[in-house]
Formats: sequence, C-alpha cells, structure tokens
Amino acid sequence: MRVLAIGAHPDDVELCCGGTLAKFAARGDHVTIMIATNGNVGSPTLTKEEIAAVRKKEAEAAAAVIGADLIWMDYDDEFLFHDRESRMAFINAIRKANPDIMLVHSPNDYHPDHRICSEISIDCRIPVTVPLIVTEYPAMKNVPHVFMYDNVGGIDFQPEIYVDITETFDTKAQMLKCHESQDVWLQHVFGADIVANMVRISSMRGLGPGYKYAEGFRSLPMFPIPGRPHLLP
Amino acid sequence: MRVLAIGAHPDDVELCCGGTLAKFAARGDHVTIMIATNGNVGSPTLTKEEIAAVRKKEAEAAAAVIGADLIWMDYDDEFLFHDRESRMAFINAIRKANPDIMLVHSPNDYHPDHRICSEISIDCRIPVTVPLIVTEYPAMKNVPHVFMYDNVGGIDFQPEIYVDITETFDTKAQMLKCHESQDVWLQHVFGADIVANMVRISSMRGLGPGYKYAEGFRSLPMFPIPGRPHLLP
Amino acid sequence: MRVLAIGAHPDDVELCCGGTLAKFAARGDHVTIMIATNGNVGSPTLTKEEIAAVRKKEAEAAAAVIGADLIWMDYDDEFLFHDRESRMAFINAIRKANPDIMLVHSPNDYHPDHRICSEISIDCRIPVTVPLIVTEYPAMKNVPHVFMYDNVGGIDFQPEIYVDITETFDTKAQMLKCHESQDVWLQHVFGADIVANMVRISSMRGLGPGYKYAEGFRSLPMFPIPGRPHLLP
Amino acid sequence: MRVLAIGAHPDDVELCCGGTLAKFAARGDHVTIMIATNGNVGSPTLTKEEIAAVRKKEAEAAAAVIGADLIWMDYDDEFLFHDRESRMAFINAIRKANPDIMLVHSPNDYHPDHRICSEISIDCRIPVTVPLIVTEYPAMKNVPHVFMYDNVGGIDFQPEIYVDITETFDTKAQMLKCHESQDVWLQHVFGADIVANMVRISSMRGLGPGYKYAEGFRSLPMFPIPGRPHLLP
Amino acid sequence: MRVLAIGAHPDDVELCCGGTLAKFAARGDHVTIMIATNGNVGSPTLTKEEIAAVRKKEAEAAAAVIGADLIWMDYDDEFLFHDRESRMAFINAIRKANPDIMLVHSPNDYHPDHRICSEISIDCRIPVTVPLIVTEYPAMKNVPHVFMYDNVGGIDFQPEIYVDITETFDTKAQMLKCHESQDVWLQHVFGADIVANMVRISSMRGLGPGYKYAEGFRSLPMFPIPGRPHLLP
Amino acid sequence: MRVLAIGAHPDDVELCCGGTLAKFAARGDHVTIMIATNGNVGSPTLTKEEIAAVRKKEAEAAAAVIGADLIWMDYDDEFLFHDRESRMAFINAIRKANPDIMLVHSPNDYHPDHRICSEISIDCRIPVTVPLIVTEYPAMKNVPHVFMYDNVGGIDFQPEIYVDITETFDTKAQMLKCHESQDVWLQHVFGADIVANMVRISSMRGLGPGYKYAEGFRSLPMFPIPGRPHLLP
Repeated sequence: MRVLAIGAHPDDVELCCGGTLAKFAARGDHVTIMIATNGNVGSPTLTKEEIAAVRKKEAEAAAAVIGADLIWMDYDDEFLFHDRESRMAFINAIRKANPDIMLVHSPNDYHPDHRICSEISIDCRIPVTVPLIVTEYPAMKNVPHVFMYDNVGGIDFQPEIYVDITETFDTKAQMLKCHESQDVWLQHVFGADIVANMVRISSMRGLGPGYKYAEGFRSLPMFPIPGRPHLLP
Repeated sequence: MRVLAIGAHPDDVELCCGGTLAKFAARGDHVTIMIATNGNVGSPTLTKEEIAAVRKKEAEAAAAVIGADLIWMDYDDEFLFHDRESRMAFINAIRKANPDIMLVHSPNDYHPDHRICSEISIDCRIPVTVPLIVTEYPAMKNVPHVFMYDNVGGIDFQPEIYVDITETFDTKAQMLKCHESQDVWLQHVFGADIVANMVRISSMRGLGPGYKYAEGFRSLPMFPIPGRPHLLP
Repeated sequence: MRVLAIGAHPDDVELCCGGTLAKFAARGDHVTIMIATNGNVGSPTLTKEEIAAVRKKEAEAAAAVIGADLIWMDYDDEFLFHDRESRMAFINAIRKANPDIMLVHSPNDYHPDHRICSEISIDCRIPVTVPLIVTEYPAMKNVPHVFMYDNVGGIDFQPEIYVDITETFDTKAQMLKCHESQDVWLQHVFGADIVANMVRISSMRGLGPGYKYAEGFRSLPMFPIPGRPHLLP
Repeated sequence: MRVLAIGAHPDDVELCCGGTLAKFAARGDHVTIMIATNGNVGSPTLTKEEIAAVRKKEAEAAAAVIGADLIWMDYDDEFLFHDRESRMAFINAIRKANPDIMLVHSPNDYHPDHRICSEISIDCRIPVTVPLIVTEYPAMKNVPHVFMYDNVGGIDFQPEIYVDITETFDTKAQMLKCHESQDVWLQHVFGADIVANMVRISSMRGLGPGYKYAEGFRSLPMFPIPGRPHLLP
Repeated sequence: MRVLAIGAHPDDVELCCGGTLAKFAARGDHVTIMIATNGNVGSPTLTKEEIAAVRKKEAEAAAAVIGADLIWMDYDDEFLFHDRESRMAFINAIRKANPDIMLVHSPNDYHPDHRICSEISIDCRIPVTVPLIVTEYPAMKNVPHVFMYDNVGGIDFQPEIYVDITETFDTKAQMLKCHESQDVWLQHVFGADIVANMVRISSMRGLGPGYKYAEGFRSLPMFPIPGRPHLLP
Repeated sequence: MRVLAIGAHPDDVELCCGGTLAKFAARGDHVTIMIATNGNVGSPTLTKEEIAAVRKKEAEAAAAVIGADLIWMDYDDEFLFHDRESRMAFINAIRKANPDIMLVHSPNDYHPDHRICSEISIDCRIPVTVPLIVTEYPAMKNVPHVFMYDNVGGIDFQPEIYVDITETFDTKAQMLKCHESQDVWLQHVFGADIVANMVRISSMRGLGPGYKYAEGFRSLPMFPIPGRPHLLP
C-alpha cells in the first residue's frame, strides 16, 4: 500500500501522525511525507533563507528515519493560500506520491496554514483522478481514502480511530528530534517543548483505548467515503 | 471472536445489522442475538400472548439462518424501562453471551424501546466485568467493544464505519423474511414493507463507500473506547 | 413565485433537487437553473472543448424538460474559486434570475466546486439587493430565501424539510437521462450509475416521511433567515 | 386539523407557543392544551393544595381565551418521572386529544419536568396507534407529527421554523396574564416577569425572519419524521 | 463562597476536579465533596461491606487533605437510579452544602453512575430553592451556578474554561493517593493507574492554555445560565 | 490591558459588543476599534465616495464616545477577500493596536464580510508574533486571546460567556446612534431599526444569566486557547 501524509510545516506530520507512519513503514508500506511550506519564518535569529534551508534538511532527516520519500512544496510559511496555482501544484504532487491513503490536517485545525493545507489536500482527492487535468505526473486510478489526524492540544477533535503507537513511539521521538531548530522556536512562542508536547498528546489519546501511546484519526465524512478503517495499521 | 447483537424487538437486529452478523457467522465467529421485548403488541388481530408466541418462533428461525444463539428477554413490547431489575437482567444475559463485541441501537434511535435498550446495554459494559455484582453467569474478563448500528431511515446517524454486505445481502433478506407477522403490521402503522425498507437503507449506505449494499456503524465514544474498528468484518 | 437552483456542474441540480424543481414548474412557478462550471473535464475520451459543448447541450435539454431557463456561467470544471470576479458574476446572474427562493449546495458538500459554489451563492444573497453594486441586471428588491439541498450519499446532511417527489420522479429521471455523457464518466470514477444513484437517494429519504421518493432540504441558518418552509412545494 | 400542545407546568405552553396556538385556533383548528403537573410548589405563601387549585383555574382561564380544551394530568410539580404509569397516562391523554400535530418541550430544555415531559410525550407518538395497548380512549389511526418548541432564554435551541405571531401577540399576552400567581413566583426565584420574558423571546426570534414577534420550532428528527412543516400556521 | 463538587464514586471528584477544589480551598472558599455511591463493588477480593467501609475512610482522608466537608450518600455502586427517592435525597444533601457553585459530572460521561449522578444533580438546581419542597435542610436562596467537569480520557468533552492547577497539582495527587484501594482495582479492570491517569489528563488539558497542568470545565448551557465563569479560581 | 475589537463594517462592533467595550473603557483598559470595510455601498441615495466619507465620520464619532482608537482599513464594502495582501494588512493593523484580547465576528456569521473578516482576524493571531514577518509595526510578544461575539439575531450562536451590559447600555445606544446613515439603510433592506435590534438582542441574551441587558461571547476553541474568561469585564 502507498501512504501519503501531508503537513503544512516541517514537523507537523511527525508530531501528529509520526507513530502511525512509522508503523506503516515498519510493515512494508510505501510512505511519502509532503510538506506545503518551507518553514521560512520559524526562527527568532536566522534569515528566511537560512531557516528554510535548515528546515529542509531537518525534514529530510526525519523522513529518512523511516525511509519515507519527501515532497517539498516550498510555499512561504504563514502564507499558504488556496488558489488555482496551489490547487494544481498539490494535484501534481499527490499524483507523484500516488497514494491509496492520505493523512491530512483536520479542517478545523488551529493554524491558517494547517487549515488551508487540509482544504487543498481534501479538494484534490477527486481531481487527481481526472485525465483531462494535465500535470507532470499522470492521473491516478482511484480516489484515495482520506483520514484526518489530530491537532496539537487535541482541541475540538474527537478521534474515531486510535492507532496504538507504543512500539513506534521511540521512532516518532527520533523523527521529531530531527527538527531541532523548532525547539527554540516553540519555547519562544508558546513556552512548549516539541517532545514534551508529543508525550502529552500521545499519552492522553492512549487513555481511552487502553494503549500506552496512541494517535487519533477521523475518516473524512465525504463522498466517496473511506469505509475501510482497516486500512490504518 | 464472540459477537452479541442486542435489539429491542424481534427483527430490529436483522434489519439494522443482519448483513454484518451473517458476515461474522460466515467467517466462523460466534454470534448471539439478544432481544429485549417479546413484541407482544405487534399485531392488529392476535392477542398479546398469541403474537408474542409467533414472534419468538420467528426470532428463533431468523437466528437459525446464520446459526446464532438467541437470548429472549421477554419484556413487554413498548414498555421497556431502565431500572435495577432490567439492569441486572441485562448484565446476566450479556455475561451468558460473553461477547468481545456488542452491537447495539444508537441512543438517539426513534423508538423508546430502542433508545432504552441502547442505554441499558451500554450501561452494562462495565458492570458485567465486576465480580461483586453476582448473577447466574460469572463476571466477564474484559469490557466488550461497543458499536452502534444505524436506524430505520438513517435519520440523524452519520456512520463512521461501513460494512460491505453485498455478499450476505440475500442471507439478511432471508432472516428478515422469517418475521412475516411484521409485514402486515408495518403496512398497518407506516405503510412500509420490511424487505423494501432493507433495500432502501442498505442501498443508500452503500453509495458513499462504493458498495452495492452496506450497513453503517459508529464506535461508542466513551471510555474505555473501542480503538479497534478492525474488529468489524 | 420565481425559483433559482444553482449547481456547480451540469447534472448536480437535476440529481439533488430535480424532483422539487419539476414540482415548482408543474404548479406554474418560474424556474431557472444556473450552472457554475462547464463540466469540461468530465470525459475520459473527449477534449475539454468537446465535452464542454456536449454538456451544455445536455444541460439545455434537461432544463427544457420542465421549461426552465438556463444560466451557463462557463467556469472551468474543478477550478471554481471565490474571488471578486466570481462574486460579481454570480451577483449579476442571480439578479438576472431574480428569485424569491434559491436552492443551493450545502457548504459541507463533498466536491470543492460544490462547496465553493455554495459559498459564493450564499454570499450573494445580500449584495444582490444593494443598488450601489452595479451590474448588467438591476438590484433585486428582497433578499431571497435560501434552502440547501442534499448531497450524493446523503452524507453528514440531516434534512429538515422533505419534499414528496413521487409524482415528479419520472420527470426527474428524464432530466437526468439528458446527461448521458456522465453515465460513462461516473462509472469510470466511482463505478456508479447516475439513475441508480437517484433511486438510492430518493428512496432512502422517503423512508422517514413515508413518501415513495423524497428530496431533503435545510433552511440556511443565517440572518435574514427563511422562516417560511411553506415556500417549498 | 387537531393540535395538541403538551407542557410540564401551567403557563409553559402559553409562554413557548401560545401565539402559534392562538393562530391555529383563529383559523379554526381544534386545540388541546395538556399540562403534566399541577404546579403545586409554585408559591412562596400558599399550601400545595391551595396553589394547585389556583393554578388549575388559571390554566382553564388561559385555555378559554382561545377556546382550547384542557387536559390536566395532575402530577406533582418538580416530580414528574417517566415510568410505566406515566407512559400509560400520557398515551390515554393523547388519545383523548387525538391530534394530527403535537407541540412538545425540547428534550434539552432546562427544567427536569420539561425534559421528562418531552421524553414521555415523544415516546408516546407510536404507542398511541397500537390497538393492543388498551386505555380508556381508543388507539389513534396515525402517528402525529411532532414539533418541539423553544425554551425560556432560547438557550441551545436553534429554530428551523419560525411562526409569525405578530397578530396573535396580544392574545398570547392575555393567556399569560391568566397565570397571575406566577408573576410573584418568578420574581421570587429568577427576578423575571412573565410578560417581560415573553416580549424578550418573541422579539428576538422575530429578528431573523423579519417578523415583529415570532415563535421558533424544530421538527423532531426521528422516524417517522414530520416532512410537512406546512402544517404549522 | 461555597462550593459543592458532586461525584458518583469515591475518587471521581478528586480525579476530575481535585486541583480546582484545592485552589478554592486554598483561597478560603468553603468546599464540600458529595459522593453518591459507596463504591461497594470496587474490589476483586473484599466483600461489599468491607470495601464500602474502606472507601468511606479513603474519601474522608481525601477530603481532609483540603479541609473539605464530606457528604456520603451511600447508594449502591453501579446501581444509582433517578427516581423520586434519589431526587429528594440529593435536594436535601445539596441544601445541606448550600453552594453558590456546583461542579458535576457531564451528562455524556462514560459510566452510568456518572451520567445519572450528573442528571440528578442538575435536575436539583431549581427544586433546592423551592420552599414547598420540604426536606431536613431549608430551601436555598438562589439557584447555584453549575459547571461540568471533564471525564477520564477527555472523550467527547471540549472544555470552555481551563483552570491552572500547576500549583495544586501535588495536593491533587495527595488526595488521589488516599484512594489506595482503587489502584489495584483500576489495574484489574482497565490496566490503568490512578495517578498516571491524572498526569495524562491534566498534562494534555494544559497544552491549549499553556499551563503545565490544567482541569477543563463547561458551563451548563441551561436557563438560568451561569454567566460568570469568573467564579472559577 | 489592551483590547481590540475588529468588525467588518462601521457599526458591527458597536452593535455586537459595544456594551462590553464601554465596560472595558470605563475601567481604564485601552480600546481600539478596527473596521475592515468603508461601508461604501451602504446607502440608497449617495455615491460610494460620499457614503464612505459619511461612515468614516460616524465611526470616528462612535469610537470617541468611549475614547477608543479607530483603525480604518478602507476595504470595499461587500468585497472583503482573504489573500496575502489583506492578511498582511491585518497583521500590521493588529500589531498597531497590540492587543491582549481580540473580539471578532464568529466564523459562522451571516454576512460574507463578517465571516471573512473573522477568518482573517483569527488567522493573524499567530503571525502577529513572528519577527520574520516584517510590517510597519513590530512583532507582538504574545498571541492575543480571541473571543467571538454574537451575531444579529443570535442565530446558530450559543454564548459561553455573558457580559452584563446593563450599566453601559445607554453608552452603547449612544455609540450606535452615531451611525445615523444606517437607520435608513437597514429599514430599506431588512425593515429593521438599528437601536430596536440592539434592544431585542441584548434583552434576550440577558434572560439566561439574569441581567437586564447582556452580550454573549465564545472563546475561540483553538490552540493556543484562551483559558482565561476572567479577562472579560
């Protein structure tokens, strides 16, 4: 199976569904991580170009931890918008990954880039299969199944499906630690530590299903609907 | 695996999740159907005792179609209430079935018996495991996973999980046809035919996930929560 | 009374509220069908121009079945966006139709064109009445009442109002059959047949109110709010 | 047409849907007001028996304003419960009124008596048509359509249907003024005046649909569902 | 100010709002903890009488940590029901505590005793002020403000108000540790440790508002509504 | 404390949270009112330029009533869109006001300008703190707390927090009366009078919490979440 996780910023995917991706990878599925923005405002000290370069390397390192492909869309951090250009760019990138399953932000996520990234991703589900929409990569055969992952703080998000990530928790932590530039930054803006956040969320989400650590997901409630939660590991 | 489907009236379980039960049975799971009321007002012509006797036979015949056990609770139709007596009776009956999974009405179902049957069933999830609550059958080892099934008309119920029942559709129809006394009755009250209803619902629910016929379910969003939709067939 | 149904693609309106439109027309109301995109990617074999031309003819034929006017907006299929240009174009087109009632997609519909078409339509309710917004057609006197129609699969949409379309069901089928180019296409993408879908939805929605076939609607819950469901036939 | 409004206490029905009832009555429909409790704790000075007697007279006077029948159930104020006895009593009383439409409290109303009265009323919809449930009055032919009326403060209640009560507003005020014992009482508990409350709610609810005064309703979203909001005046 | 926290079982209040209670107490408010059931099935080894006696002592010790009063209702664990007797008993007990604020379970909590305890508590808000309802303790002057506390797992509960419990976290832990009989029991049923659970929930809830540890609450959305979240510490 | 209220049109802020702003101002907080559009279509007789000039003066007069600063963004009325330009302009303007608290429209408000103004405002919460996003005014130190205010008609908006505006009601009326050009206009479009509307809403919202007049708010349920409703006066 082919899996595509789409995040707005470098580290979003790792934080919100990294344990599940590690599980997919461990059982032999092909995983692609696609990142919409280059994170070029995520530093209190570097220039935009410098921090963008740093973050690309961090993202590559994180993907490498589980042997995932990386698609770097390079939009400006905090300024992702949904227009014809970004729609076409996402269609092409998704076709490149050619997934059976897509994991995306939830449309009610807290950050504008998250929300808009979610919207573009979801809106490409069907167009990616349409031959008359011509891009570098060819049209896909099937509409991929879409699952939405949890947000930071688990705010206004009630999971329907819980993935037990106890065994891949260390791998997830390793992926997150690749994003070292963000530890400083998160401390600066929110007073929060990236690995500590990971523990807080995964720990809480595990409480319901009785796992030590879990990640939560919802099926996209839209036609054609993913009737097959079994696809998650 | 052991599966218990609980319905308020004879034919509820068959109508709302019969195709899924047939699938469980076909793959070798042990299935029990538990019916709360005896259906003793479901006739325009017979006496209460007569129609109750007819319906018990119909229920036995329907269960036999898939080789399921039948638990007949024998409460008065339209007058199921939730009190200490009914709570204890349900605890005992569930322990008898000893299920890994329970399929129950949704708490917002349209009929009072459905709704109250759902409430009692859900409220017994945890007590069935408590040794100090003594009944004829012994305490269970684990809290069963609870899934709620769709209602007639699919009103105010958005499935999270869809089970493809295309292959067991004929078996489901066969189960429903065992309840012949209800065809007359449904015509009398709603002008609706039991098998026609089944086609309408299963057909519509299949539209989203792309199955010919489907049944829809939701996980009970309560601690301890079923994190394992994979349990459904 | 004047009625305007707005759909994103040729066939959306017919599928989701065609029976209701036929009923409006049959009782003498003036009906306009307005279609946002030209459907120019809806073919696995033709060019964009060819399929757009085919679909315009199909839309004209469908409208002709009930004697409705047709407004063809000619936006690119799969690429409708909400900006100043499209807002102005919709204001002008709605003023041309000059409706008392507007029937639109629901904002949570599954397809990006549907959702954005819904958003633009709803956002024009008030501006259409503002004289200082100058377009080819003059400002309307009143804010039209807006009702949202059901989606394919009835997913995450709980109707408030059900219209009995049993008598106009054949007319609706006739309207849908005008869109013959789409039968092939829907089979290609979803494995679904356009008339079969119509039967599945209308049949299910009829179950609750006790009609053979029904279409479901919701009032737009926004100020100024349509307090008059009696306007639906 | 026959209309039945069911309220938990004397004055509930007048406050929440009195204007609509006056409109039904004015156009010649038969109206019954059914009151579950006798209001026997609604006084800071009288005994239970005294205040219950006062309130019955007030309820009779209010019903007389619009020529409605009154059904007085006489349960203890603040202690209405849902059990076999109250279910049977409601079935019998509803059969006596034999309504096409029932107007009831919403299940999320703020007062326990309101909520439980709503639950019993809704749960009797179907049993009232069942011949084998024998009461003093005979079984009804059809399941009545159920609409839920607004609550005091309009809290957590979003109307779907608005009835223009501008013309019957004075009649509604006249009905409410019959409950003079409650002015003192409401001042005692909430510091609120019964007619002032009426103005506040009706005024606000009129804002959306553009009426001077309005009352808001929701259809009961349950099978068999009222697909006919046209039934409201 | 006088605060009353009502829980279904010994330890519920400590787990879900113990940090907030400690904060109330620390600033000089009068705190009462009221416990509906005696926890008499909460042991895999003791008899009902033995475990009930143990748990009462544990509850007394926990209350003593913050100098709170304890009201022990002594209903059977897992068998709390809502009837006239329990309604009257709660009215009397609430009057004894005479609170300005009540903290209660949420009506959608996972355990039947929690849910029913929530329902009885909420339903007593208004009756406690009614002089004609005579109990041992006199009628209260005002309807108390009601806030609902979070559940174990934070499932289907989105807090509106977050209380920073970082400073009282150790006190909360101390209160929970008084319930030592439950550590064994929770391990038996859920494989969960009571203090570990506390860390998981408080930690996660702190993530949004930026506290190290937090407890979440919702105002009861019912008339008369608590418009004064400032009342929480 | 510094407070920023952002409205789409001149008079929105006054109508929806003017009483609360007056209360902030009266206790010495610094208040800024920021208005997105110039209201240049809000007249049946003047030209766009004329009515825009009139409305700016009215807005200045209204702000002066409570000594608030005014930020005039000057976008075209009915044509506010969310793009990189408007995002940057809002970031800069918010930084100018440098608020601890922001009061904004709700995302489900009825008017497109309201909704989009809400979206831009909310989406700027985090970017305003990012140093690498360079605008005329410097980056803010903290993410401001965001509260959403009620809409006209209170439709689909359930307040969580109620502010008692009885004492500042006259000041609010005085602020609204500054917008005299809109009385004519509202009569033209909706048949509604601006001060009458104010009375209807404030009066109704006061009913729940027991205030003569109230304004309702909700916390933005997004990370980082305002856990401190105490910030409202």
